[in-house]
Amino acid sequence: RRVFEILNFKCEFVDDLAPTMLRRKECRQGAKAIIERNLELAIERGQIPPTTDIRRAAIGLFSYIDGLIINWSMEPDSYSLAEQAGALIDIFIDGLRQRVTSYSE
Amino acid sequence: RRVFEILNFKCEFVDDLAPTMLRRKECRQGAKAIIERNLELAIERGQIPPTTDIRRAAIGLFSYIDGLIINWSMEPDSYSLAEQAGALIDIFIDGLRQRVTSYSE
Repeated sequence: RRVFEILNFKCEFVDDLAPTMLRRKECRQGAKAIIERNLELAIERGQIPPTTDIRRAAIGLFSYIDGLIINWSMEPDSYSLAEQAGALIDIFIDGLRQRVTSYSE
Repeated sequence: RRVFEILNFKCEFVDDLAPTMLRRKECRQGAKAIIERNLELAIERGQIPPTTDIRRAAIGLFSYIDGLIINWSMEPDSYSLAEQAGALIDIFIDGLRQRVTSYSE
């Protein structure tokens, strides 16, 4: 779980710094593919429910990470993204995971 | 819950269309304040746990909505934001709500 979060963050940061739209588009597509693969892995491992809509979850997680970075970059002094990122991403992951308990019961 | 989601979406859309950065900044601050007030209301109503970190949740929800709109605007033909928005926002809200059950038990 942590691994794919870090991978995505890294790609997004490079994305934001890249000067060309082509690089940006390639990186966005690559990041989305990585997120989808890792959501599939998370289902295989029982970390999120098998009923998870992977495409929707990938759109959501990708947009969320993108939004966090964009918003933080507009107000970098208001909070530390490095300190908050883990807890912020956990809110989303908890939303995906929340049916695991009832599923396995 | 629905009311503040719609309010925020509306503000964000106006935000994106507004030509000046000043308008943008005002709208961003207004939207964040609305989200924080509504998270407080959600706690009062027992919809999310009283231990919720409101500031963190507001940063997350604001960034998520922003990211969803930005990403959809880059690929508007790949999916319908109008159709997906409710389910996408629910993932995040479920993440905030997920400790309600154990709290009230």
